Amino acid sequence: MLPMEEINLHFTGDIHAVESAHNLLAAMLDNHLHQGNDLGIDPREVTWRRAMDMNERALRNIVVGLGGRTNGVPRETGFDITVASEIMAILCLSENLADLKERLSKVIVGYTTKGKVVKAGDLKAQGAMAALLKEAINPNLVQTVKHVPAFVHGGPFANIAHGTNSIVATRMALKLRDYAIVEAGFASDLGAEKFFDIVCRLSGLSPSAVVLVTTVRSLKHHGGVKKEELSKENLDALSSGISNLEAHLDILSNFGLPVVVALNKFNTDTKEELDMVMEAAKKRNARIALSEVWEKGGEGGIDLAKEVLEAIGEGKTYRTLYDLDMSLKEKIKTIATRIYGADDVEYVPQALAMLEDLEQRGFGSLPVCMAKTQLSLSDDPKKLGRPKDYRVTVREVRLSAGAGFVVAICGSIMTMPGLPKKPAAESIDIDEKGNITGLF
Amino acid sequence: MLPMEEINLHFTGDIHAVESAHNLLAAMLDNHLHQGNDLGIDPREVTWRRAMDMNERALRNIVVGLGGRTNGVPRETGFDITVASEIMAILCLSENLADLKERLSKVIVGYTTKGKVVKAGDLKAQGAMAALLKEAINPNLVQTVKHVPAFVHGGPFANIAHGTNSIVATRMALKLRDYAIVEAGFASDLGAEKFFDIVCRLSGLSPSAVVLVTTVRSLKHHGGVKKEELSKENLDALSSGISNLEAHLDILSNFGLPVVVALNKFNTDTKEELDMVMEAAKKRNARIALSEVWEKGGEGGIDLAKEVLEAIGEGKTYRTLYDLDMSLKEKIKTIATRIYGADDVEYVPQALAMLEDLEQRGFGSLPVCMAKTQLSLSDDPKKLGRPKDYRVTVREVRLSAGAGFVVAICGSIMTMPGLPKKPAAESIDIDEKGNITGLF
Amino acid sequence: MLPMEEINLHFTGDIHAVESAHNLLAAMLDNHLHQGNDLGIDPREVTWRRAMDMNERALRNIVVGLGGRTNGVPRETGFDITVASEIMAILCLSENLADLKERLSKVIVGYTTKGKVVKAGDLKAQGAMAALLKEAINPNLVQTVKHVPAFVHGGPFANIAHGTNSIVATRMALKLRDYAIVEAGFASDLGAEKFFDIVCRLSGLSPSAVVLVTTVRSLKHHGGVKKEELSKENLDALSSGISNLEAHLDILSNFGLPVVVALNKFNTDTKEELDMVMEAAKKRNARIALSEVWEKGGEGGIDLAKEVLEAIGEGKTYRTLYDLDMSLKEKIKTIATRIYGADDVEYVPQALAMLEDLEQRGFGSLPVCMAKTQLSLSDDPKKLGRPKDYRVTVREVRLSAGAGFVVAICGSIMTMPGLPKKPAAESIDIDEKGNITGLF
Amino acid sequence: MLPMEEINLHFTGDIHAVESAHNLLAAMLDNHLHQGNDLGIDPREVTWRRAMDMNERALRNIVVGLGGRTNGVPRETGFDITVASEIMAILCLSENLADLKERLSKVIVGYTTKGKVVKAGDLKAQGAMAALLKEAINPNLVQTVKHVPAFVHGGPFANIAHGTNSIVATRMALKLRDYAIVEAGFASDLGAEKFFDIVCRLSGLSPSAVVLVTTVRSLKHHGGVKKEELSKENLDALSSGISNLEAHLDILSNFGLPVVVALNKFNTDTKEELDMVMEAAKKRNARIALSEVWEKGGEGGIDLAKEVLEAIGEGKTYRTLYDLDMSLKEKIKTIATRIYGADDVEYVPQALAMLEDLEQRGFGSLPVCMAKTQLSLSDDPKKLGRPKDYRVTVREVRLSAGAGFVVAICGSIMTMPGLPKKPAAESIDIDEKGNITGLF
Repeated sequence: MLPMEEINLHFTGDIHAVESAHNLLAAMLDNHLHQGNDLGIDPREVTWRRAMDMNERALRNIVVGLGGRTNGVPRETGFDITVASEIMAILCLSENLADLKERLSKVIVGYTTKGKVVKAGDLKAQGAMAALLKEAINPNLVQTVKHVPAFVHGGPFANIAHGTNSIVATRMALKLRDYAIVEAGFASDLGAEKFFDIVCRLSGLSPSAVVLVTTVRSLKHHGGVKKEELSKENLDALSSGISNLEAHLDILSNFGLPVVVALNKFNTDTKEELDMVMEAAKKRNARIALSEVWEKGGEGGIDLAKEVLEAIGEGKTYRTLYDLDMSLKEKIKTIATRIYGADDVEYVPQALAMLEDLEQRGFGSLPVCMAKTQLSLSDDPKKLGRPKDYRVTVREVRLSAGAGFVVAICGSIMTMPGLPKKPAAESIDIDEKGNITGLF
Repeated sequence: MLPMEEINLHFTGDIHAVESAHNLLAAMLDNHLHQGNDLGIDPREVTWRRAMDMNERALRNIVVGLGGRTNGVPRETGFDITVASEIMAILCLSENLADLKERLSKVIVGYTTKGKVVKAGDLKAQGAMAALLKEAINPNLVQTVKHVPAFVHGGPFANIAHGTNSIVATRMALKLRDYAIVEAGFASDLGAEKFFDIVCRLSGLSPSAVVLVTTVRSLKHHGGVKKEELSKENLDALSSGISNLEAHLDILSNFGLPVVVALNKFNTDTKEELDMVMEAAKKRNARIALSEVWEKGGEGGIDLAKEVLEAIGEGKTYRTLYDLDMSLKEKIKTIATRIYGADDVEYVPQALAMLEDLEQRGFGSLPVCMAKTQLSLSDDPKKLGRPKDYRVTVREVRLSAGAGFVVAICGSIMTMPGLPKKPAAESIDIDEKGNITGLF
Repeated sequence: MLPMEEINLHFTGDIHAVESAHNLLAAMLDNHLHQGNDLGIDPREVTWRRAMDMNERALRNIVVGLGGRTNGVPRETGFDITVASEIMAILCLSENLADLKERLSKVIVGYTTKGKVVKAGDLKAQGAMAALLKEAINPNLVQTVKHVPAFVHGGPFANIAHGTNSIVATRMALKLRDYAIVEAGFASDLGAEKFFDIVCRLSGLSPSAVVLVTTVRSLKHHGGVKKEELSKENLDALSSGISNLEAHLDILSNFGLPVVVALNKFNTDTKEELDMVMEAAKKRNARIALSEVWEKGGEGGIDLAKEVLEAIGEGKTYRTLYDLDMSLKEKIKTIATRIYGADDVEYVPQALAMLEDLEQRGFGSLPVCMAKTQLSLSDDPKKLGRPKDYRVTVREVRLSAGAGFVVAICGSIMTMPGLPKKPAAESIDIDEKGNITGLF
Repeated sequence: MLPMEEINLHFTGDIHAVESAHNLLAAMLDNHLHQGNDLGIDPREVTWRRAMDMNERALRNIVVGLGGRTNGVPRETGFDITVASEIMAILCLSENLADLKERLSKVIVGYTTKGKVVKAGDLKAQGAMAALLKEAINPNLVQTVKHVPAFVHGGPFANIAHGTNSIVATRMALKLRDYAIVEAGFASDLGAEKFFDIVCRLSGLSPSAVVLVTTVRSLKHHGGVKKEELSKENLDALSSGISNLEAHLDILSNFGLPVVVALNKFNTDTKEELDMVMEAAKKRNARIALSEVWEKGGEGGIDLAKEVLEAIGEGKTYRTLYDLDMSLKEKIKTIATRIYGADDVEYVPQALAMLEDLEQRGFGSLPVCMAKTQLSLSDDPKKLGRPKDYRVTVREVRLSAGAGFVVAICGSIMTMPGLPKKPAAESIDIDEKGNITGLF
C-alpha cells in the first residue's frame, strides 16, 4: 500500500538511472562526432537516440547540433520514452554488474561511413554507464495492499523489448520463497513467447507452470461485443470469443508446460457465462480455476493456487519454440505460423535487407523479439477472436545487440507517446502537507 | 566520507526530480501548442527550454516537433544543464510546499502572439510539478570526511541564479546547531551580493558575520603571476594582488557585517607572503586568521573559529545594497559601481528594450541577479586585481519570475556545457563488486 | 540544330518563369504565416513546396523559418525540381492568360487548422504569378537538325503530371501546318492514357491517329534479355517480349483511334527479328511500318508517314476511357484493370482517406493522373512483358486543383533528383570564344 | 520606355542565369558532401549559401539535407537574394569569359575540417557555371523614355559588393559614344570610393570627372527636417545640412578628379534655398549646375552637361585612396578616417580574428569593400549631417575571393529581404491581353 504513490513518481530512481546511462552514451557519441570523429561515424547513420521518461511528442523527431561549429554536428534524431531504451532491456537481462557492463559495451549506436557497426564499447562508455546503474540493478522489494511481498524491478516495453521484470529480481524471489510468479507483458502470443524464447533461454531460469489469465468480458470482446455492452450477458458472443482462449491454450502447448487458466471474475459475469468458460477449458483438458481475488482478497485465490500447485507437481520442463541456429527468417516464420496462426510472413524490402545484413554481420543466431499489436493474435488490431488465412508483414527490423535479440516490427510501433488534449498532470496536485491528489 | 560517491552520482535524486519537473512543464507546453493552442502562444516566443543533467553540447540548439502534423509543432529550442533550470533556483528559494507551488505557477514560459506572458499556472502545471518535487524539497544531511554534519541541498548556477543552497536547509541547520555556515558561489562580488540582496532579503534570514576566504596563491594570480609560477615566492606580485583582497573588503563593507578573512594556507606559501597578507588585512582593520584545516583538520581552524565567534559577538545586522523600489537600471548601476568598481553601465539595445518591457509589465520591483564572469571583478575575465576606469556592458536580460529575480547578463553565459575531447566518463569504471574508479 | 545548346541551358527562360511564379507563391504563403496568419493556415499542413531547376538532393527535405521571431515561422518543407511544379502542368493546360490566371488562383497550397483548403487566390497571388508567366505561355518554335519546325513548350513531369507539351503550342502547330504530332511522355499506359483522358478531354483537342513507337531491343528487354546482350539476336526472348507490344495495342484499343506501330530500327536488329515484330503486329491487324529515320533522315520515315496518313484517313474519333462522374476510386480501378492489366487496386490507409476527403470536398469529378513507374505496365518496375495476376497499390494521393486533376501515386515517386557521384557539370566547359563542351 | 516592364520582370534573364550558376555550385557542394566528401569539407564550415531572386524571409536560415541517409548531409545554411550573390559581383568585374571562369574558380565555398579553404575550382564547377553565364555576360542595351541609349547590366549589392554595373558594359559604352556615365550605388562614401578603389583599380578604367548629385530636400533632411516637412522652405536647416554636401566634396577630393555638383531641382525648392546651395558650392570652389531634367527633359540638363564637359577638359587623372600593399586593417582605417570622418576603427573579436586569418592566408593584398549604412556618413544610420568624434565598428569580415575583395561589415547587413504585411504582388495583375498593372 505505502509505496503506490512512490512507484508512480520517482520510486527508487531506477528509471532516472537508466535514462542517465542512456543519455550519457548519446552525449559521448555526439561529442565524438564533434571532436574530430576518429571512428568515422556517419552522422546520418546514428541509430542511438535519447531517452526521456515523459510523454514527449515534440521530441520524437528533432534536429540537434545546430548553432554553428562550436555547438556539435547537425543531425536528425529524437527521444524515446525511457522504458523503450535498450538499456532497460539490458538491465532486466543482466545477471550481475560484470554481465551488465559486457552487454552495455555491445550496444550498437550507429554505423561508420564504411558500414562498420559502432558500439558503446568503441566509445568507452560502458564503465561509466554501469556505474550509473550500480544501484538500479538491485531489485526493489515492495508489498501489495494485502502485504504480499513483490519485486518491482525493471519495465522493458513489451513490444520492442521482452516485457518482463529483471532476471535478478526473479532469482532473488526464488531465494526468498518457495514460488515466484513472473508477470509477462501482454498475452501468451507476446509475453509468454518472449519469456520462454528470450528470458528463460538466456538466463537458464526454468519455469514449472503457466497461468493464463482470462475474463468473460475479454472473451465476449473477442466475440465482437462493444465495450459499453460488455456488462450484459451474451452467451453467443462468448461462445464465439472462446476461440481466442483456445488459441492461447494451443500457443502455450508449444512450450511443454502445464497451463492453469485463471478465470478472473467480474461482478457483471453471469453464472451461465462463467460455466461456459469453465466447460470450454475442461473440454480441452486444461486446468481452470475461478479467481475471486479482487472481491475476496487472498481467500478468493485459494482454488487457483491449488490448481497451480498441482500443475507444478506434474514436474514438466519447458522447451523453447525454435532453435537459435535457425535463420532469422525461419525464426520469424515459426513464431508467425505456430504462435500467431498466420499462413506466412511478408517483408517490406528494407526489413528484408536489414535481416540479410544482420545475418551477414553474424547476428543471425540471436533470438527474435517480435513487436506486434497486443490487441489481436495477428498484426492487425482489428482482427479479433482467432484470426485465420492471413499473412504477417514485417515492416522494420532493429538490432538490440546489447540486450541480445533482433527486433522484428510488424505494424507501426510508437516508442514515444504524446500527452492527450487534457493531460493527467493538469489534475495532479499536492497540498501543503504533501498529500498528493489526482495521481490515480 | 561515505556519501562522496553518491553525491557525484544520483545522490538522493533531487536533480532528477528538478529535471522531471522542468521537462514536464516543457512537455505540457508543447502539448498545448499541438492540441489547438488555446492560449495563443507564439511558438517562436517560447522561452522555456528543456533540462538535462549532462554536458550536452549537441542539445544547446535544436529544432523539435518535426515529422508532420502528428508529431508536435516545429520550433527552435534547446536544453540547459539541470542546475541552470529556474526550477533549481525556485527549489532553493521556497519556504515550503505551498510557497514552492506558488512560485512554480509564476514561472514564465513564453509569450502569446499578442505579447502577453504565459505562465506555468496558465498551463495548470504547478501541482504536478510540485508533486514531483515533494521529496526534493527536503534537505539532505551528510557528513564530511571528519564527520561534521553538512547539508547538501540544491545547487543553482551562480551566474544566472543566486548560487547558494536552499533556504529550507539553512533553516534546518539553524535549528539543529548554534551556528550555520552558508557557502556562497564565487566571491563577494557575486556570491555575497546575491546572498544578501536576494536570499536574505527574500527569506528574512539574518546573518551575523562574513568569512572571506583568500589564499596567497590567488592574490599572486591577481598580481599577474602565471599559474605554473604560483608556487614560487613573489612578494612584488603579492603586494600588487592584495588590491583584489582590499576590493572585496570594500565590497563587503556595503552590507554592514563584520568580516573575517580566512587565509587558507598552502604548503608553498612562504612566511613572508603569509605575513604580508596578514599585515594588509590589519592595516584595513579587518579581522584575519590563518586557516590550516587542509593540513591539520579541525585543529587547524580553531583560530579562525575564534575570530568568527568574536565577529558574531559584535551583534551587527546586515543591510541590503539597494532598495526594491529603485528601477531595474538603477539597481544594476548600483551593483556595477559600488560592487564591481565600474564607472557606468552600457546596454546593448535588446537588453535595454527588455528592461523597459519588464518595468512596464510590473517586474521592476524585483531584485536583480547579475550574471558575470567570476574571474574578474569586472565583466572582462582578463582584468585582474582591482579594475578601474571601465564600463560594464549588459548584453541580455532574462526574467526568472518564479524564482523572483531579473537576470542581467554581462558577457556570454553558457548554460549547457560540452564534453572535452577525452570525457571523464571514458575513465570511469566499476568492478563486479560495485567498486567505482575514475570518479574523482 | 542551332538551338540545341540553348534548349539545354536557359532557352527562352520559360522554366525560370515557372520557377519564379512557383516560388513567389511560396514566399507569399510564408509571409502570410509570418505577418499574423489571418487565414489560420496550419504551418504543418502547407502542401506547397518550393521549386528549383537543379538536381538538389539536399533540398528535398528542409526546415525553413529558423533564426527567431523576425525570420519567419519554422516549418518542414522542401524543393521539387521545377518541371514537377503544378505551375508547369497548369501552363501546359491553359488556353490563354485568363484561363491561366483562373487556374493559378485555384492552386491549393495547404489547409487551415480547421481543415479548410487554402488557395493561391486566397493569398491574392494569381495576378502577379500570371504576370511572371506572360511570356512563358507563348510557344517556342525551333527546328530540328533537318530543319523541321518543332514547338518546344512546356515539360510537365510524366509521373505526377500529364507529360505532354502545352495545349497552346499544339493549337498553334495545327494552325501552321496540316498535321501536328504530340509526343506523350512514357508509353501508352501513361502518356497516351493521360493525353486522352486529361489533355484532350480538357482542351477539346481531337486527335486522329496514334503512333506507337517500339524497337526490337525494347521487346527483347521485355522478354528478359539483359542490357549488355540486347545487341545479339534472340528470337525466343523477342517472341516472349512481344506480349508487351500486344498489351499496348490492347490498351490503345480503348481509345477508339487507329494505331500505327513505328518499328524504330537499330543497326543491331536482324532481319529475322524485324520480321517477327512486323508479323506480330499484322497478326493483330495493326498497321506497322519500319522507321529508319535515325539512319536515313526524312527518307527513312516515308513508309511510316504513309501509314499514318492512311490511318488518319479512317476518320475515327477518339473516346475517353472513363466518365468524370465516376468516383475517383472507380476511375482508378478502371485505369488499373483496363490499362495496366491488374486484377484490382489496393490502397494504403492514408491514400484511401485522402480520396474520401477529396470526394467530400467536391473534387470527385476531376480526372485522375496516375503516377506509376514507366518500366513496367504494372506498378512494380521488375515485372516485364505483360504482367498478370497482380494488384496495383496506391500509396499516396495528391490534388492538383489548378491543373485540374487528382494524382494517384503507385510506388515512390521522386520529385527532386540528386546529382551522381561525378556530376555532368564537372565536365562542362566553355572556352573564351563561348564554345561549350560537355553539354551532350 | 518599352522595356521598363521587362526590366522589372525577367528582362534578358541575367539574374536567372546568375542564380542558376550560384545554385549549381551549391548543389555540387552538397553533392560532394553526400558522395563521400573526398575534400574533407566541414559541413558546419560551408560559407556558400543559395540564392533566390525573391524577398524570402523564411529562407534566411534553414536546415537542409534532412530525411535520412539518401537525402544529403544535414547542415545549416540559407538563401540570399540573387543580387547579393558573389557571382553577380564577379559578372560585373569580369573582362571576358576567360576572366569570368578564372574568377569563378576562385570563389571560396567553405573550409575543410583541417581549416583549408575549398574553392569552386576544387569542385570543378567553374566551367559549367561560366557556361550558364555565357549570355549574361553580354551587356543589355535599352533606351530611356527620351530614347537615350543606356546599358542595364549587372546589379551587385552596394553594401556587400561594389554597387556598379559591369565593366564590360562600361567598355562597350565607351566604344559606342564619346562619353559614358556610370551610376554608383549610394553616395560618394560608398559608391565613389568603391568605384575608384575597386572597379577602376581592377579594370584600369580611368574616369575623367565626378558628378555629385544632391537636392535641397536631402540637405534639409541632413539638417534635421522630418520627411513630411521637407516641402517647406527651411533655410536654417538647409544651412546646417550643407555640411553633408561639404563632406562629400572633401571625400571626393581624395580621388584627384574635378567634381561637378548636380543640384537636382524639385518643384518645392525655393529660389533662396537653391541659391544657398549654389553659393555653398562656389564658396568651396566646386563646379555646380542646376539640373532640371525631370521637369524639362534633356533641355534641363544642358547647363550641367556643359559644366561636366569643362570638368573633363581639365584633363585630371584619378588616384586611389590606398595602396594594396597596406594591411587590411590599415586600408579599413584609411577609409574610415579619410572618407567617413571617424576617429578610429573598432573590431568585434571575430572580425579581428577573421582579418588576421585572411592576412595569413595571403588575401591581405586585396582591396576592401565596406558594407555600411547609406543613411549616414558614419556606421550609425541616425547620425545625420557630417558626424564627428565617433568610431566605426567592424562587426564581421567576409571574403569574396572570386570578385577579388574583402568585405568589412559595419552594422548588420541584410542579404535577404522579407515581404511587407501587404506585398506588392497582391496588387499586380495582368489582363487577358497581357497588360500588366500594379508593377510600378
